[in-house]
Amino acid sequence: MSRTPEDLLTSTTEALARVRADAPLVQCLTNSVVVNFTANALLSVGAAPAMVDVPEEAGPFATVAGGLLINLGTPAGEQREAMLEAASAAAEAGTPWVLDPVAVGSLPVRTPFAHRLRDLRPTVIRGNASEIIAVAGAGAGGRGVDSTDDVDGALDVARKLASTTGGVVAVSGPVDAVTDGERVVRIANGDVLLTKVTGGGCALGAVMAAFAAVTEDPFTATVAAVTVYTVAAELAAERSAGPGSFAASFIDALGSVGAADLAAWARLS
Amino acid sequence: MSRTPEDLLTSTTEALARVRADAPLVQCLTNSVVVNFTANALLSVGAAPAMVDVPEEAGPFATVAGGLLINLGTPAGEQREAMLEAASAAAEAGTPWVLDPVAVGSLPVRTPFAHRLRDLRPTVIRGNASEIIAVAGAGAGGRGVDSTDDVDGALDVARKLASTTGGVVAVSGPVDAVTDGERVVRIANGDVLLTKVTGGGCALGAVMAAFAAVTEDPFTATVAAVTVYTVAAELAAERSAGPGSFAASFIDALGSVGAADLAAWARLS
Amino acid sequence: MSRTPEDLLTSTTEALARVRADAPLVQCLTNSVVVNFTANALLSVGAAPAMVDVPEEAGPFATVAGGLLINLGTPAGEQREAMLEAASAAAEAGTPWVLDPVAVGSLPVRTPFAHRLRDLRPTVIRGNASEIIAVAGAGAGGRGVDSTDDVDGALDVARKLASTTGGVVAVSGPVDAVTDGERVVRIANGDVLLTKVTGGGCALGAVMAAFAAVTEDPFTATVAAVTVYTVAAELAAERSAGPGSFAASFIDALGSVGAADLAAWARLS
Repeated sequence: MSRTPEDLLTSTTEALARVRADAPLVQCLTNSVVVNFTANALLSVGAAPAMVDVPEEAGPFATVAGGLLINLGTPAGEQREAMLEAASAAAEAGTPWVLDPVAVGSLPVRTPFAHRLRDLRPTVIRGNASEIIAVAGAGAGGRGVDSTDDVDGALDVARKLASTTGGVVAVSGPVDAVTDGERVVRIANGDVLLTKVTGGGCALGAVMAAFAAVTEDPFTATVAAVTVYTVAAELAAERSAGPGSFAASFIDALGSVGAADLAAWARLS
Repeated sequence: MSRTPEDLLTSTTEALARVRADAPLVQCLTNSVVVNFTANALLSVGAAPAMVDVPEEAGPFATVAGGLLINLGTPAGEQREAMLEAASAAAEAGTPWVLDPVAVGSLPVRTPFAHRLRDLRPTVIRGNASEIIAVAGAGAGGRGVDSTDDVDGALDVARKLASTTGGVVAVSGPVDAVTDGERVVRIANGDVLLTKVTGGGCALGAVMAAFAAVTEDPFTATVAAVTVYTVAAELAAERSAGPGSFAASFIDALGSVGAADLAAWARLS
Repeated sequence: MSRTPEDLLTSTTEALARVRADAPLVQCLTNSVVVNFTANALLSVGAAPAMVDVPEEAGPFATVAGGLLINLGTPAGEQREAMLEAASAAAEAGTPWVLDPVAVGSLPVRTPFAHRLRDLRPTVIRGNASEIIAVAGAGAGGRGVDSTDDVDGALDVARKLASTTGGVVAVSGPVDAVTDGERVVRIANGDVLLTKVTGGGCALGAVMAAFAAVTEDPFTATVAAVTVYTVAAELAAERSAGPGSFAASFIDALGSVGAADLAAWARLS
């Protein structure tokens, strides 16, 4: 069960090769702010984005997509309807799907809605520490939203949440943590510039769905996605003069990052 | 009727000069993924974008716009209402309009909706081979959606579709083809990076509307738009390290591409 | 009351430092075309964007946000409902808010809607000359929309509008003008490339909200926002090959522009 950093690096490199070989179809129901950046991140890493997010289409499409992302950043009414349709269809069809509960906590529409989606047992839930604690709610520790925004502080909640959903939970921060309730892997890559580009976190959710589409084990897929994504951020930061040029370099780097970069840069533990 | 590559090059160069001189107002009802890229492509090539896409405004605006794009990438309910309004108003007012039937085929909302718009006789229909075949449906050959995604394989359907609508049909692919039912022109420009940027095809639909706004003959306008757009892609690819830097370089190139570039690079037949 | 260019430069530099120190939370209900660019502009200048724009969330959030932008570029029905909610909540809670009446004039949905928002007395109204004249309508001079699109031609209307709302009015153009009904400051910075990137004006509205969030006097905040923004545009233009590379350089420049740049470049009068 427990694997060495070398094992994780190998499985990450293999997963990236499969994404590029298979070009998995990734359906995204995501927020209006980051939808363009997300599609470009998927295209560059080797996946095929499809932003099919209207009711009556979202459900059927989720049964043929390789992976699905549901991101709650700007959850308009018609999109929420499509999200429920897609999540239910994915759950039934066995399509791996990622829930990104953006800004869930006290906002009164998305918070109960996120709980409803959580109960459909997402393959992966991805968020910062506060969002993970909020999406867990009473069901996984009873702490609700609190001021903790430290990855390690959220890790207990994340483990319980993963045990409840039977899926994977990824907590973003300076060091990212991924857990399936038992195993925990930390990835110490990334760059602060990724937090200065809108969608820096949101597009990662889509990339997780791409990796989950081509990988048997969702935990391995999630670790691989975080590692590839954050190593690409470091490569891009070296070629950037600020967040605007970083955004373009990062999309470039998602396409060019390879096994040698991962071997040289990945800090997995 | 039949024109030489030299004639086509001349009319393309003249059309580009008119776009830059007249800055035609191009109304776009397009998908949320590419709307920013599309507006920037229009601005750079010299047109004036206006994304007026709410009901009660879309119709009146279509009567004063120089050209109109309707793109079905993310067809939410309110936008579909505005699209019908705009297409009807454009048809009545004589405003040239472009239909881009993104992902039409088996998706159950957009497919019948695309057929309804097709029956309003768009000035130009633009899509890849599968989309053109799907939008033609039974009305132009009875083949419906099939697995063909080869430009030449779709060309018969495209010619029939153009004859039915009385407009122009453009089929995207490694070599693009434009037909008005009789004439066929092939444009062998472009770069694979254009397929790695979301909106690479969608923004072309908007540029076609800009060229149609300032050109008497829609067939000539469509050939010119494809040629300028795909030559700009080749210029940009030379200055790019990947799809992120390509997207920025391509917007730059749409602004700088000129008669000499077209003469040196255009491969029209 | 009247201040020298040196005073204005000092207060601008101080306001920028406060934005970077405080990272004010700026809520944006803006159009789909520019929402990504706007969020990236806010992040780069040092603010924290939050595009909370669904009904039932927009109102409560406006009471905790540091500043609010309402931009009418693509005013879909559900977003209009959220805009009214947010503007009313901001007005009641004392959250400074900016109204950007994009393309208001003859369009039949947004024009009366803009008048309704105007009557809620925005802290700042920002637009080009035609938009300012249109939003003023009969209430501030009775001229309605006319063909004037010259900043100086709109200045009388802008002063009256500011007196009516008790707020600030900023008129965009080659030389920008800011007035609170009595004081008038002109800022002669910027670059034509800013007009070739979609959202070049819209994102300024969001930056105004960020500056207003950390500055006691909205007039000072607005002058500071325009100055920082347009000086950053000049810095970026020097490093750009066209509008695509300019967009990235401009986001970079919003993050790097500092006191020395402002002292060297700002043309305030």
